Amino acid sequence: MSGVVVQNIERADRRVVGELAGFGVATVHEAQGRKGLLAPRLRPIFPGARIAGAAVTVSAPPGDNWMLHVAIELLQEGDILVLAPTSACEDGYFGDLLATSAMARGCRGLVIDAGVRDVRDLTQMGFPVWSKAISAQGTVKATLGSVNVPVVCGEALVRPGDVIVADDDGVCVVAREEAESVAVSARAREAAEEDKRKRLAAGELGLDIYKMRDRLKEMGLKYV
Amino acid sequence: MSGVVVQNIERADRRVVGELAGFGVATVHEAQGRKGLLAPRLRPIFPGARIAGAAVTVSAPPGDNWMLHVAIELLQEGDILVLAPTSACEDGYFGDLLATSAMARGCRGLVIDAGVRDVRDLTQMGFPVWSKAISAQGTVKATLGSVNVPVVCGEALVRPGDVIVADDDGVCVVAREEAESVAVSARAREAAEEDKRKRLAAGELGLDIYKMRDRLKEMGLKYV
Amino acid sequence: MSGVVVQNIERADRRVVGELAGFGVATVHEAQGRKGLLAPRLRPIFPGARIAGAAVTVSAPPGDNWMLHVAIELLQEGDILVLAPTSACEDGYFGDLLATSAMARGCRGLVIDAGVRDVRDLTQMGFPVWSKAISAQGTVKATLGSVNVPVVCGEALVRPGDVIVADDDGVCVVAREEAESVAVSARAREAAEEDKRKRLAAGELGLDIYKMRDRLKEMGLKYV
Amino acid sequence: MSGVVVQNIERADRRVVGELAGFGVATVHEAQGRKGLLAPRLRPIFPGARIAGAAVTVSAPPGDNWMLHVAIELLQEGDILVLAPTSACEDGYFGDLLATSAMARGCRGLVIDAGVRDVRDLTQMGFPVWSKAISAQGTVKATLGSVNVPVVCGEALVRPGDVIVADDDGVCVVAREEAESVAVSARAREAAEEDKRKRLAAGELGLDIYKMRDRLKEMGLKYV
Amino acid sequence: MSGVVVQNIERADRRVVGELAGFGVATVHEAQGRKGLLAPRLRPIFPGARIAGAAVTVSAPPGDNWMLHVAIELLQEGDILVLAPTSACEDGYFGDLLATSAMARGCRGLVIDAGVRDVRDLTQMGFPVWSKAISAQGTVKATLGSVNVPVVCGEALVRPGDVIVADDDGVCVVAREEAESVAVSARAREAAEEDKRKRLAAGELGLDIYKMRDRLKEMGLKYV
Amino acid sequence: MSGVVVQNIERADRRVVGELAGFGVATVHEAQGRKGLLAPRLRPIFPGARIAGAAVTVSAPPGDNWMLHVAIELLQEGDILVLAPTSACEDGYFGDLLATSAMARGCRGLVIDAGVRDVRDLTQMGFPVWSKAISAQGTVKATLGSVNVPVVCGEALVRPGDVIVADDDGVCVVAREEAESVAVSARAREAAEEDKRKRLAAGELGLDIYKMRDRLKEMGLKYV
Repeated sequence: MSGVVVQNIERADRRVVGELAGFGVATVHEAQGRKGLLAPRLRPIFPGARIAGAAVTVSAPPGDNWMLHVAIELLQEGDILVLAPTSACEDGYFGDLLATSAMARGCRGLVIDAGVRDVRDLTQMGFPVWSKAISAQGTVKATLGSVNVPVVCGEALVRPGDVIVADDDGVCVVAREEAESVAVSARAREAAEEDKRKRLAAGELGLDIYKMRDRLKEMGLKYV
Repeated sequence: MSGVVVQNIERADRRVVGELAGFGVATVHEAQGRKGLLAPRLRPIFPGARIAGAAVTVSAPPGDNWMLHVAIELLQEGDILVLAPTSACEDGYFGDLLATSAMARGCRGLVIDAGVRDVRDLTQMGFPVWSKAISAQGTVKATLGSVNVPVVCGEALVRPGDVIVADDDGVCVVAREEAESVAVSARAREAAEEDKRKRLAAGELGLDIYKMRDRLKEMGLKYV
Repeated sequence: MSGVVVQNIERADRRVVGELAGFGVATVHEAQGRKGLLAPRLRPIFPGARIAGAAVTVSAPPGDNWMLHVAIELLQEGDILVLAPTSACEDGYFGDLLATSAMARGCRGLVIDAGVRDVRDLTQMGFPVWSKAISAQGTVKATLGSVNVPVVCGEALVRPGDVIVADDDGVCVVAREEAESVAVSARAREAAEEDKRKRLAAGELGLDIYKMRDRLKEMGLKYV
Repeated sequence: MSGVVVQNIERADRRVVGELAGFGVATVHEAQGRKGLLAPRLRPIFPGARIAGAAVTVSAPPGDNWMLHVAIELLQEGDILVLAPTSACEDGYFGDLLATSAMARGCRGLVIDAGVRDVRDLTQMGFPVWSKAISAQGTVKATLGSVNVPVVCGEALVRPGDVIVADDDGVCVVAREEAESVAVSARAREAAEEDKRKRLAAGELGLDIYKMRDRLKEMGLKYV
Repeated sequence: MSGVVVQNIERADRRVVGELAGFGVATVHEAQGRKGLLAPRLRPIFPGARIAGAAVTVSAPPGDNWMLHVAIELLQEGDILVLAPTSACEDGYFGDLLATSAMARGCRGLVIDAGVRDVRDLTQMGFPVWSKAISAQGTVKATLGSVNVPVVCGEALVRPGDVIVADDDGVCVVAREEAESVAVSARAREAAEEDKRKRLAAGELGLDIYKMRDRLKEMGLKYV
Repeated sequence: MSGVVVQNIERADRRVVGELAGFGVATVHEAQGRKGLLAPRLRPIFPGARIAGAAVTVSAPPGDNWMLHVAIELLQEGDILVLAPTSACEDGYFGDLLATSAMARGCRGLVIDAGVRDVRDLTQMGFPVWSKAISAQGTVKATLGSVNVPVVCGEALVRPGDVIVADDDGVCVVAREEAESVAVSARAREAAEEDKRKRLAAGELGLDIYKMRDRLKEMGLKYV
């Protein structure tokens, strides 16, 4: 299956992608029925970034970042690079030179189930990365992988063009076809939360707001 | 054992709790004879917080945060929520809505041997959390646990009302009955350290201050 | 082998050490042929530090920091402490008192394949540490180890006097005898990177700059 | 997405499945281009089993095995249960009662990215399991999951009806549509290996059999 | 707290202990309400052992097994040694000499949240051990710990005299005071399971035996 | 540093190597002063093997086993292959074909800080392996490494020709120059242990045999 580069992929509507970025990962994940979350081992290299974009996917051999160069040519404004190694690896596949190149093509960030390096430079450049590790261990360019094929990254299936949402809570993938409807649910969810937030801040209890007392009693909860 | 909520617990004296917060985890841990430290996998979601308070404990099933709602009703000014899942879990049990509710009741923070989410919001709200993971993975409300029963959290026994001390070094539990005497020891310890800090800063060696040279020689240390 | 303290070690030239600090870990690691990187589990306790210095090595039993006191006496201006436990351990071997003492003797930082504590104080003091863990768990002073013997730290061999380079990407060791030639390579490497950075920022592709297209085709890469 | 049970799934040809079992995981994995391997954390509970069968997939909440009961009704002779929790969990979802039930319906084994229990009984019954953990921690039946939907198990995508091959080396998934062609490749591969095995056993070197010497020299390998 | 040896402890009734051994860990754990399971990282060094006995507990510093010698003197026929290090450690605290000594005093096995060595000898002697690791790394005898104090071992609280049950599924602790009632529940549970096992083996479904279909429908499960 | 093959290495005396095999890892490790143990993550793929031999070392890129073919040509009767990847990797570098080839040249086993596959075949062939993982994930042959250079394997330094001792307790390395003296110490140690074993089996206590009571009292141990 290696050695394939898919050049044209469909991307979700930009407006929807922008809206999903605003909701953040926790809300989007809930809004789509608690699916699509990448494993929590993927952590941001600096706090505060909150992005969304279309996935340009890379399947790469362990310790080999050749396909990143291939993928960068295919990037469009607003895309997010998503790299999954074909077996577990923490090497630093990506550093400031690749980030410079990716940013020049409009890339918004990188999600990588492996390592990244030059994190001081990446932080100064404001290029956000969610990675499994930080490691100065370089990679080679000797073996083919693939670009824009479906990958399993952080234990979630990511297809090229799917929407990636990432913030301090982690990374979530939304199927391209579902992006619109997830945004609708997220909007509704956020409106409902706003009301609850106020009531909770005023001292009302979740037990009452969500009417949990009867069900808890029925289940057998005993106060002593 | 599940399904029990203990409503009234004894708490340590507030003055003592406040003093323990000031000493910080490393000093308190030493002062009580190197016991009570929670496992170092519990890390703060943002740096700089240093708190102490009475533990309101929650024993919860994996992936189920129902009991947190029950626990919040029992919180008093200055308490700290302590959640231990009944088996290992990294799901995000707690987010900004629960934090809003807990803060409204005077809660000082959360110690959780599982995951937390909405960390950007929690950081902005200044609500400190020490957790095993950050994860947007939500939880359900389907199975009972217990509140204010003894729990093993981060591999340490925490009983309701025990004093929790937490800062950038981690989390320590002090038995309620021992809080006073631990504070006394910590005070003595800090005074002694202050003197040593000055001597060390002036270039004196620990080898001399602690009179280690003879014992090292006796043990057979060889300088070559 | 335990119980040996080597008092006099050779150190690399200060000018070279200073230059290596400026290049940072990723560049130095590449410049010496991708060897000498310590395991990525060693992470800085605060971001932004970038140091280099001669290694004063400590081999210590698990949970016993006695030898650190012995090592501090041997520190010279610009040295870096490197501690490897004789078996895996996450205890907090080092805190603000030891840091005060080490700084008084000109020490630039600590690399430790174990735990560290008082990280808030260390951060305020500006004393950088790269460690496997942060833990308030104290240590004893009961068993001998050795100072200034070769150690395996973070899965890399570090000999006393070798150059340690450390920054946000991790820690790298350079053999004392090779420091000069590694600096030469790193200088050349950085000059070359500067040119590439400009071309990439202008939108040129790595595929073209590194002339990869032919080789990729030859290897069988298929664009679809 | 939860709460869906797909009753009818297509399964690969039985003859092909049987042949794949005979080849074993390493050969099948190579024969399909090094894809489809489940993470090596999935280990057999006893050595020596080598099976293949059609996947009946289960997506289950952490600590909740309700859906296994639903899945068992859908099992056909020769099927293999594949369970992926919706977030990481090591609880014992499956024990001797469920195994009795599954065996009664012709199930050949279980692949589970979570825990299993009653392993002594399972071993005596000869019911093979590949799991992430062995744990007596029981589960509840409180929340819905889904059956026969695509799941990511052990970091690989498994669709209902895909062929699972499992032995002491681990677990591999073969897409149902590719099973036939993978079997053809595996057959060819094994024939070629048999010849090489004899030559290697006679003392011939891989360097010569695979004609590697020239390429190694060209790459710059130096014998000293 | 270190440096304390409690010489006389109460032990559960021998007959009850024997009965609990027969039920095994999974049944006992269920019978006492899913509490008391030690973390699944504690694995048997050889398969097939199934024991129960009174806990003689040891709290030991990392890398120091001195207290095991103290504890052995306190062993009575049928006891089980339970060792918890005061901070995480994988050193080999226990080998064939200590096992010889423990067996001479009637000890039935060891549960240790650390490492063990001489496993070939221990296997030949038939002395079962549940440990976190196997490691030849020896320990010292330099620092005090305690014997027969409550310990947290494998993330569960074990008090001296509590009943330890261990088999291939792991290790469970039963409070001494509850041993009798847990045995009663386990007996009832096993009887009920026997009946279900027969019905399941005959092809009846758990869905019907446990009458789950209505509740699943009510929860919204959809068959498609 | 990559790309170097050292053809001639010195090996320890065969008689001494044979004797070290007989002592086993725990005894050899103690006899040489508790140094040289490889990390306990290296586990045997089947129980019961106990070997010693001269190390033929391989430094290999992640996911690339090319250098194993180069190393096999250099094997002599009684050697043991030792492979360390240049960064962490669990791929299956070695399987039954390589084992066939290695055995044809007299190789006694493999120690690999990475993965191995075909473990059923290797077990049947009686070719022992100590590895970090079992994984069917194959490797490529695209990038050079080195053979017979010093490597850090399992966090210990192994130089070509050093003696490797391996059994169910793990793996230990003995410097070639020290093999003779370590054997002498191990012999003495075993003789002493034999006597102690008898006394302990007869019910004498370690507390008395090792005369620990006075020192324990002096340290402050309190019996209550």
